[in-house]
Amino acid sequence: MSDQEAAVATAPGRMPAAAGGVRPGRLALVSLIGVSIWALPRPAEVDPRAWQLLALFVATVVGIVTKPLPMGAMALVGIGVALVTRTLTLGEALGGFANGVVWLVVAAFFLAAGFTRTGLGPRIAYALVALFGRSTLGLGYSLVATDLILAPVIPSNTARAAGVVFPILQSIARTALGSDPTHRRKTSAFLTLAAYQGTVVTSAMFLTAMVANPLAVQLAAAQGIEITWGAWAQAALVPGLVSLIVVPLVVYRFCPPGSAGTPEAPVLARAALAKMGPMTRAEGLMSVVSVSLLIAWILGPRIGLDSTSAALAAVAALLVAGILNWDDMIREQEAWNTFIWFATLVMMATALDELGFIRWFSERVGSVFAGIGWVPGFLGLSLTYFYSHYFFASNTAHVSAMYAPFLAVALALGTPPLMAALILGFFSNLFASLTHYGTAPAPILFGSGHVTLGTWWKVGAIVSVVNLTIWLGIGGAWWKVLGIW
Amino acid sequence: MSDQEAAVATAPGRMPAAAGGVRPGRLALVSLIGVSIWALPRPAEVDPRAWQLLALFVATVVGIVTKPLPMGAMALVGIGVALVTRTLTLGEALGGFANGVVWLVVAAFFLAAGFTRTGLGPRIAYALVALFGRSTLGLGYSLVATDLILAPVIPSNTARAAGVVFPILQSIARTALGSDPTHRRKTSAFLTLAAYQGTVVTSAMFLTAMVANPLAVQLAAAQGIEITWGAWAQAALVPGLVSLIVVPLVVYRFCPPGSAGTPEAPVLARAALAKMGPMTRAEGLMSVVSVSLLIAWILGPRIGLDSTSAALAAVAALLVAGILNWDDMIREQEAWNTFIWFATLVMMATALDELGFIRWFSERVGSVFAGIGWVPGFLGLSLTYFYSHYFFASNTAHVSAMYAPFLAVALALGTPPLMAALILGFFSNLFASLTHYGTAPAPILFGSGHVTLGTWWKVGAIVSVVNLTIWLGIGGAWWKVLGIW
Repeated sequence: MSDQEAAVATAPGRMPAAAGGVRPGRLALVSLIGVSIWALPRPAEVDPRAWQLLALFVATVVGIVTKPLPMGAMALVGIGVALVTRTLTLGEALGGFANGVVWLVVAAFFLAAGFTRTGLGPRIAYALVALFGRSTLGLGYSLVATDLILAPVIPSNTARAAGVVFPILQSIARTALGSDPTHRRKTSAFLTLAAYQGTVVTSAMFLTAMVANPLAVQLAAAQGIEITWGAWAQAALVPGLVSLIVVPLVVYRFCPPGSAGTPEAPVLARAALAKMGPMTRAEGLMSVVSVSLLIAWILGPRIGLDSTSAALAAVAALLVAGILNWDDMIREQEAWNTFIWFATLVMMATALDELGFIRWFSERVGSVFAGIGWVPGFLGLSLTYFYSHYFFASNTAHVSAMYAPFLAVALALGTPPLMAALILGFFSNLFASLTHYGTAPAPILFGSGHVTLGTWWKVGAIVSVVNLTIWLGIGGAWWKVLGIW
Repeated sequence: MSDQEAAVATAPGRMPAAAGGVRPGRLALVSLIGVSIWALPRPAEVDPRAWQLLALFVATVVGIVTKPLPMGAMALVGIGVALVTRTLTLGEALGGFANGVVWLVVAAFFLAAGFTRTGLGPRIAYALVALFGRSTLGLGYSLVATDLILAPVIPSNTARAAGVVFPILQSIARTALGSDPTHRRKTSAFLTLAAYQGTVVTSAMFLTAMVANPLAVQLAAAQGIEITWGAWAQAALVPGLVSLIVVPLVVYRFCPPGSAGTPEAPVLARAALAKMGPMTRAEGLMSVVSVSLLIAWILGPRIGLDSTSAALAAVAALLVAGILNWDDMIREQEAWNTFIWFATLVMMATALDELGFIRWFSERVGSVFAGIGWVPGFLGLSLTYFYSHYFFASNTAHVSAMYAPFLAVALALGTPPLMAALILGFFSNLFASLTHYGTAPAPILFGSGHVTLGTWWKVGAIVSVVNLTIWLGIGGAWWKVLGIW
């Protein structure tokens, strides 16, 4: 009976003191916040269910930021409480799981798995390094360009920067940066920061480049502002490309490499490409499907195919072609985790709007800010939003907690709605430049030890100013051209 | 650069000839069926979208039965095609993912993970064996009773029969059935068949005891028949308990054990219980939550809490108590796989109803069967449904393919709707008695080698007649008492 004994013996071993990863102190805090809001005197104009839901929503968001339980678990607990307290009907509570934008994210996670599986990501990186990697600056741009190519269809900057780009950066750092250790260290630091600040910018450029972007879009939708895939990409195009050109130069200036040339890098890349052999059928199909999907996303409403339908069709095509493997897909934990918490937040935000809470809140805020012009008002508001990221360890947590109320205040100030929603959305990525913990790939790249803490923060602060200048200045002009304000 | 090389080297290795598990021949067959129906002349009274959806639905169901791709993948492909061909809008296509019964199944999978994690399942089994396992028949009943206790909250008969009961049966067979090999072999055969035929019956007894039961309920709902958790359990209670008492006796008669006594089994069970020590806090909480959930399910509408809300609240409680671990949950592949295919079938069946197809089909069938009395008609129909399971390797595939049309015909014959839906639902489990491949745990238990193929099929055929007699005879009387017909 050894099998059975083993099963019994390991069961208690899998339940440490902090059982199931629960942190009771934080859980108590979250509960206290929820109960307190619930018990506060409700303004007469607010629907009773809306007030209860507000309490649950705030508690869930605080839970997603402070993580007494993993994000998805926190979200499911929020749903459970909403059902038992009859704050929401079952139909309302499950509504988020059928949300189109939520499924766009799930589909994008599956597409990203296709990139991993086919090896197309590394091939793109090596090809760019072989072409442009002779100079250190060119090598940095090659890494950033790899990230840019992958960004539209890989909604996790961790998968791009830490999954595809970083292993190649590491192999270059180990074997292709010459023999002088000081030179090698400094060049590695430059490449690491260039790759990191690059992924911060590419994340801002596409709705599907970072998982909190669709969340921002849904939170904006709950306040009546519609943002399509194409509209986001178009608005981000000009400031994004300028940032991608300028930011590596800024990093080059403030975290200079050990030498200006990296002649061994293209040699290494060509050797790796030779080893890969010619492009496989799977890589070819993956490329065709990705490019087709991009075209469908760009054309968008003009071909009558919404972005989620196009993404699901692309997933179906990859399944039929045998490029995506179903077992890999259902093992794609991050997709399911995201599915649960994302759907829950979307559902709660939508229900708060439908119950009339958002309108009531906006009217109240509007009366407070009456008389302040929207230009100085929104500038102060958006900069506060940006720099408060020093206090967050995740873009998603920050967006969950602050995007909706800051957008409501921006609208109350009279800011043009679409511009307010987009700028807060872009900033929801760009603010990750600041720290070595601001978004998931940051601690991974920082953990390589190539960059000192002081350099990371100094360059982060400088890049933040550069990005703000580019996006508000050049971006502002571009959005005027587009008629967004 | 060894990491990168390794990643590149393994990528093609993971793509064998049958890339991604795709079987092109079967896929071609599925496509051909879909395209043929699509191209058939559409009856004038049928909505064009309904006809297209019928083609997609039939193709998806054939795909779920013949598996050119795994079930979930097949379902996603069906959704992709429905979207690209504009057969369904995005909102319609995603609707199933917010379906209450679908989430009841997902929640039940998570609860089952709690049983596995705490070790409560083996403890229940050993306790029953310690109490009743002295006689061989009592030992058989102990295994069946374990399955019965777990059945309401574990929607996978594989998890119960193959996951909890079978390892304990194996350890008893190895060490507690005496020294005579012939006796041991015959007793092992009896125990294996008793456990298997037991799980076939317990699967029929609760809406949440087998994953295709909620599917049957949703397919019935699409034809206007509502079945709650409590209604199913109440209708199945009497015939189910009679079957659980009689079937092991039938197995005892036709596959007799080597000896009538198994005195060593309770000794082994007590030793295992001693080794487990006293019940842990986790097991205690798991018991409390399970019993509370059962009470909530039984009371159902009377306490104004639907079964899905109660199940999600139970999951939330287990998460907060640290008994369920979120990482385990999102790694629970079978839950996600089921979520996708189940939601897809539910969505398609619901849409077929909403587009008026089901009504049109029923009216046509009704005119064909006019003049046949419902009693002989439904008897012939349900027996055909039952014995066609010789051709199926999964309850789910059988239900997906045949439940809805057979129910439609039954209604057209004038069979009392609720009874027709319930009987076809019960049979959707009982028909698995027939073969060693009829439901997922069958090949696992058969694979132990304790039972010969001839014995398995002979006992299966006899038990099928016994079950049919009990469920139609005693069950019929019980349902008359309940006013179901």
